[in-house]
Amino acid sequence: MEAFTLHPVGWVRKAAEATWIEVLPAYARALRGLEDFSHILVLFWFHANDHPEGRAVLEVHPRKDPRNPLTGVFATHSPLRPNLIGLTRCRVLAVTAGRIDIATIDALADTPVLDIKCYIPAPLAEGEVRLPAWVGEPAPP
Amino acid sequence: MEAFTLHPVGWVRKAAEATWIEVLPAYARALRGLEDFSHILVLFWFHANDHPEGRAVLEVHPRKDPRNPLTGVFATHSPLRPNLIGLTRCRVLAVTAGRIDIATIDALADTPVLDIKCYIPAPLAEGEVRLPAWVGEPAPP
Repeated sequence: MEAFTLHPVGWVRKAAEATWIEVLPAYARALRGLEDFSHILVLFWFHANDHPEGRAVLEVHPRKDPRNPLTGVFATHSPLRPNLIGLTRCRVLAVTAGRIDIATIDALADTPVLDIKCYIPAPLAEGEVRLPAWVGEPAPP
Repeated sequence: MEAFTLHPVGWVRKAAEATWIEVLPAYARALRGLEDFSHILVLFWFHANDHPEGRAVLEVHPRKDPRNPLTGVFATHSPLRPNLIGLTRCRVLAVTAGRIDIATIDALADTPVLDIKCYIPAPLAEGEVRLPAWVGEPAPP
């Protein structure tokens, strides 16, 4: 079966007063110009679920709430999925050699980072977006 | 070195009158409920660049325009990057067994699909977003 091999380009780090992405020295040049963006998209590996059982889950109750309907993982952001890629947006505080300080991140400390992309808004008109009831109200801007 | 193995969950397919994601039968259940979303995020593999040279590129001129400043790939959406993950948003037309018909996709035919996530808008206030000049005007909503 076709397979692709990924290596971490860095890790999520958390301390009492700081949250940052440590980028491996070999990839530090890939940060050039990132300081001009207010936000980044971080793609990471749900390493805590990297076992056959975690990757075999195809349906979940979203947000682990049994009142939410059983839903396929591709219709959720569940951390259980065949390829354990997480995606989140972070606000950039500072970019220094091999390090991106961020406001906060929806990922565990020491999570392997797979990729970083600049965040460029591409909003949709409100009427264009359709969501199921379990999503609830969109987050405030 | 730490490594993660990914397998395609499907492929981008294009024909004269249709564009769709073919999902492997083994993962078809993971689409349950996806029809309630107007849009999806598709994570895919830039398979045309899957060679050591493609994965070694750390800096590019965005949009292949030499007038744009040399920029680290993590500050771009370049298809050349250490882990060849592409990310795009698609409008869902229909979801049937193992198939998602979409309006269009910014990926080549037969591109391996790594993951699919529901799209939930999380807009930022305009004043919060900072972008370099090369990005230009944001796309219209």
